[in-house]
Amino acid sequence: MRFTSERRLDDAVLERAFTLGDVPGLLWTPASTSEPAPLVLIGHPGGLSTMYPRLAARARHAVAAGYTAATLELPGAGDRPRSAAADQARADLRRAVQAGERVDDAVVDRLVLPLVDQAVPEWQALLDALLDLPGISGPVGYSGGIISVGVRLAAVEPRVAAAVLFAGSYVPRAIVEEARKVTTPLLVLLQWDDEGNDRQQALDLFDAFGSTEKTLHANLGGHTGVPAFEGDDANRFFARHLR
Amino acid sequence: MRFTSERRLDDAVLERAFTLGDVPGLLWTPASTSEPAPLVLIGHPGGLSTMYPRLAARARHAVAAGYTAATLELPGAGDRPRSAAADQARADLRRAVQAGERVDDAVVDRLVLPLVDQAVPEWQALLDALLDLPGISGPVGYSGGIISVGVRLAAVEPRVAAAVLFAGSYVPRAIVEEARKVTTPLLVLLQWDDEGNDRQQALDLFDAFGSTEKTLHANLGGHTGVPAFEGDDANRFFARHLR
Repeated sequence: MRFTSERRLDDAVLERAFTLGDVPGLLWTPASTSEPAPLVLIGHPGGLSTMYPRLAARARHAVAAGYTAATLELPGAGDRPRSAAADQARADLRRAVQAGERVDDAVVDRLVLPLVDQAVPEWQALLDALLDLPGISGPVGYSGGIISVGVRLAAVEPRVAAAVLFAGSYVPRAIVEEARKVTTPLLVLLQWDDEGNDRQQALDLFDAFGSTEKTLHANLGGHTGVPAFEGDDANRFFARHLR
Repeated sequence: MRFTSERRLDDAVLERAFTLGDVPGLLWTPASTSEPAPLVLIGHPGGLSTMYPRLAARARHAVAAGYTAATLELPGAGDRPRSAAADQARADLRRAVQAGERVDDAVVDRLVLPLVDQAVPEWQALLDALLDLPGISGPVGYSGGIISVGVRLAAVEPRVAAAVLFAGSYVPRAIVEEARKVTTPLLVLLQWDDEGNDRQQALDLFDAFGSTEKTLHANLGGHTGVPAFEGDDANRFFARHLR
């Protein structure tokens, strides 16, 4: 892990850009030195610079609540090399959605599974690197982003002690099966009127999780309409499991 | 409204028993005089003395969060005159459930609709009486109990500015239609594995509500397994709408 730049946000948060191998990422910690704080991984749909305003807002919110926060670019997104196969699958999915057709399971598999296979070990390597740094401690929370990445990470990574997942994208059947193995406490957010998301599929995924503590928060509104109070709810959920 | 007894709980809460006409009820206020505090109506399935420990716990929690709280016995419950028709409908429902049969809509209607028709005006009369007392102010929250009573009350009573509803009982189709008229902000609690509750019906009811702010909190577990943190979530929901 190599830090490439740093700056302060509002005097309260130190933001550091880094690369891990050739993958860029961002780390947010309290600007003043303090006790080691549990880490919250900030998931996203890919594209750190496009997503930056929302990522930074979520990170500041997490740091204000006593956590450290970090994120990593996804495979094929931002300045990372694109995958021709993923681009083709994305085009196929978009064509089906625009035509009002049911999206074929094989298209979802081609789009999501290679991404999950590549991203999850990268986020695990991020944990290896970050938990060696002073000021950052476990247990770790994971929040948001592509839900299939969160499901796999929760299923395979014991350092993730709590996860907030956002039901807002297509989920391969294989990932629903992996969800049955998840025992991590979960808070699942669902936007009730998310035009790009199958509500019944999201409810079936929630049902599938093997966790004995799992909570679903469904709110009226579309994909980007998650109410601000859910950010506070997420921090309280993390407080119950990361403290 | 006539107060019949009073006592202190933990030195912090004054509990007063009353009758409103011939209907018994309980009122909880801070033991020390203070600014008028918004009222939260504590709903329940009927039977104040059987339910007392849970009702008192919810009321203390509400008073600790800065509210006043009150409840009223339901028609046909506790020491109130029983209804032969309701007893028959309840027996029919129980027989269907025990036989593993689908409960007939007509049985649900016979059980629930007369109860709603009688209970809602009584709770409205309770509001008339309580909001005249010093120390109790609007806007008013409603919490829990038989969900059909909560739906009707939210639909017809403008003084109810926020409602926490518990999806845990049979809902007549007519009540689902009334739900479309509800514009009150709602927090709906659903126990995901509630053996006595149809999950899909609860989700359909949530979908039907006309409110522009509505949130569903679903938790793993059966009817009586609502996690303690939902009490705090309910108070924060009320804080957003009653302050």
